[in-house]
Amino acid sequence: MALTFTLDALDSDTRARAGRLWTPHGEVLTPAFMPVGTQGAVKTLAPDELAAAGADILLANTYHLLLRPGVETVRQMEGLHRFMSWSGAILTDSGGFQVLSLAELRKVTDRGVEFRSHLDGSRHFIAPEDAIWIQDGLDTDIAMSFDELIELPASIETVRRSVDRTLDWAARGWVERERLRQEGRGTMGLFGINQGGVEAAERARCFDTLGTLAFDGFALGGLWVGESRSLSLEMVERDCARFPADRPRYLMGVGHPVDVIDAVGLGVDMFDCVLPTRNARRGTVFIATGRLVVKNAAYARDPRPLDPECDCYTCRRFTRAYLRHLFMSGELLGMRLASIHAVTQMIQLARRARRAVIEGGFRAFRAAFLDKFRSGETLTRSGVTTAPIPNPEN
Amino acid sequence: MALTFTLDALDSDTRARAGRLWTPHGEVLTPAFMPVGTQGAVKTLAPDELAAAGADILLANTYHLLLRPGVETVRQMEGLHRFMSWSGAILTDSGGFQVLSLAELRKVTDRGVEFRSHLDGSRHFIAPEDAIWIQDGLDTDIAMSFDELIELPASIETVRRSVDRTLDWAARGWVERERLRQEGRGTMGLFGINQGGVEAAERARCFDTLGTLAFDGFALGGLWVGESRSLSLEMVERDCARFPADRPRYLMGVGHPVDVIDAVGLGVDMFDCVLPTRNARRGTVFIATGRLVVKNAAYARDPRPLDPECDCYTCRRFTRAYLRHLFMSGELLGMRLASIHAVTQMIQLARRARRAVIEGGFRAFRAAFLDKFRSGETLTRSGVTTAPIPNPEN
Repeated sequence: MALTFTLDALDSDTRARAGRLWTPHGEVLTPAFMPVGTQGAVKTLAPDELAAAGADILLANTYHLLLRPGVETVRQMEGLHRFMSWSGAILTDSGGFQVLSLAELRKVTDRGVEFRSHLDGSRHFIAPEDAIWIQDGLDTDIAMSFDELIELPASIETVRRSVDRTLDWAARGWVERERLRQEGRGTMGLFGINQGGVEAAERARCFDTLGTLAFDGFALGGLWVGESRSLSLEMVERDCARFPADRPRYLMGVGHPVDVIDAVGLGVDMFDCVLPTRNARRGTVFIATGRLVVKNAAYARDPRPLDPECDCYTCRRFTRAYLRHLFMSGELLGMRLASIHAVTQMIQLARRARRAVIEGGFRAFRAAFLDKFRSGETLTRSGVTTAPIPNPEN
Repeated sequence: MALTFTLDALDSDTRARAGRLWTPHGEVLTPAFMPVGTQGAVKTLAPDELAAAGADILLANTYHLLLRPGVETVRQMEGLHRFMSWSGAILTDSGGFQVLSLAELRKVTDRGVEFRSHLDGSRHFIAPEDAIWIQDGLDTDIAMSFDELIELPASIETVRRSVDRTLDWAARGWVERERLRQEGRGTMGLFGINQGGVEAAERARCFDTLGTLAFDGFALGGLWVGESRSLSLEMVERDCARFPADRPRYLMGVGHPVDVIDAVGLGVDMFDCVLPTRNARRGTVFIATGRLVVKNAAYARDPRPLDPECDCYTCRRFTRAYLRHLFMSGELLGMRLASIHAVTQMIQLARRARRAVIEGGFRAFRAAFLDKFRSGETLTRSGVTTAPIPNPEN
């Protein structure tokens, strides 16, 4: 098998799990946070920096790579790993999300999605089968089923129709991978995506069918897209209760530290999100004590690292004063150094959660993490009012 | 002494020299190319990358750092080396060039220069003495005299007046460093700058006085600012013939590979220029065979590194196809990887020139370098017409 998943430990108090996923490009320790390399690069960062941050898996976006540089170019460059010079594992999304959020003039039918590129207006069509061979052409380690996302709130009829279509597309994608395997290709793993918005019954119905296909893992789709956080967490809890224990569970697009820790406690194994790196490029990072806005005048002569508890390259080598200077001066190095910290912070948070599970203390770990994270003590030295504290609850 | 210079070898055929400059932050091998860290960072690059590129000295801009983050901030952060996390040597310019090219509403008198910041319009005044203690406050290894640049062409009267003023300011700066030394500061080296535009007699007159002050090195100022290249090279030849053999010679602002090699042949030891990194950020790099425009469609599926003869991080790890993709996609990583190559290429070119001098074959080295550099064979694989070949002669 291309992909195998083993569980190292189950937390006794919560549903948290510690596992490892074996891929053709090495082992992925879970819970895992996957940095996002949208266009074949995690913005501003080189592969060595990602490895140094502890990354063993990256996410890349099929839609973006399909449009530019194109699958054939990546294939001729011997696949995405070689192209990016990244020797770890890669998970690709199916392109469904971007097609439905970025592409223009899109038309969704049972056959697939017709759309125009947001780059040059060129016309494209992706059938669920296409999404699979495209991901295979990129040489991914883990492919995702092509699914239909809907905007929330949506009528129950809309949700039902999207579940039906998602199930049909998942099955067709699954068959396509079988076909590829008969041709000696398709060694990649394939994850199914559960949909149904925040309709518990629809998500359950979706999984009743999805779960009959022997996917290598299951993703929780359509959450954290505008609905309330508590409802999302309820869906996570329900989905995880239905998903088989021996397959990895991937909560798509979730990346706030508090959300990640809460979802780990409900049994999720994998996460991805552009939030940490996007924030970092804008000069905001998460540290152990909350959120830090690098440009804050309070840091102008602050000799401390961004996060005194972090041992990333940025925190080992540079002061807040220097980081602030770089951002104030528009130096791209600032974005880079903040991104290094942001990626490290998320990967190491997941890694610490893993250790807590193995050592049997996830609940205490979570409580201590939240306590410190919400303390907001990022400006204590200067005595200036504290930075806004993240409050994801709503 | 803070700064000592020793000569390892003199070329028998040309005026080329191989030396080493001992600074409080390590040894600088000459000929040396100094990457420019304008605002306390070589754009897009981290200090480790500069060290890996072979850099033993960087240049930083006094004018920029004076305005932002300010000398007092750098001093509180324990100097520029600590602030930037750069353990090698640093040379600072005096700020004169930027004051006269960037600042607004500037007014030059014998006392100094009054100007408004190009950032916020704030009013500042720099006397030649100020330029020295500011550079000392930045904790530089090599400070430059505050000089007056003029735009060329200029009347002989204008040139004369600027030479007179430059000499007066150089002497006042020299005295200021002596004063700092009596206070236990001012351990930095100090270079005098020879001016006089392309008036050979004025440059000679300038040096007749400048050379009586025991500067730690001498710079060739006011060249490559619009006048013809052959005339500039003639001034370089004349200046170098007058400069004492036992002090390093620094040709300011010159960074085209062909110019650097020609000036080395005339006896210059040190160079700086933003050209290689500025070009790189725009997707143009120099390689052994000339200039390469990364976005050229011919490289879309080119599996070769930017420069097959280069062993920088970029050329060891990434293809032209990937670099082109990054530039086409607007990924900042492209700027970074191109900058790594550009900086490495210039530093290693100077290093190879040094080895040629030591091995007694600079003339042959120069001929082989020019031959290959002008071949322009950057697109041979695809058969597309060659990229524009640099022709600095005019």
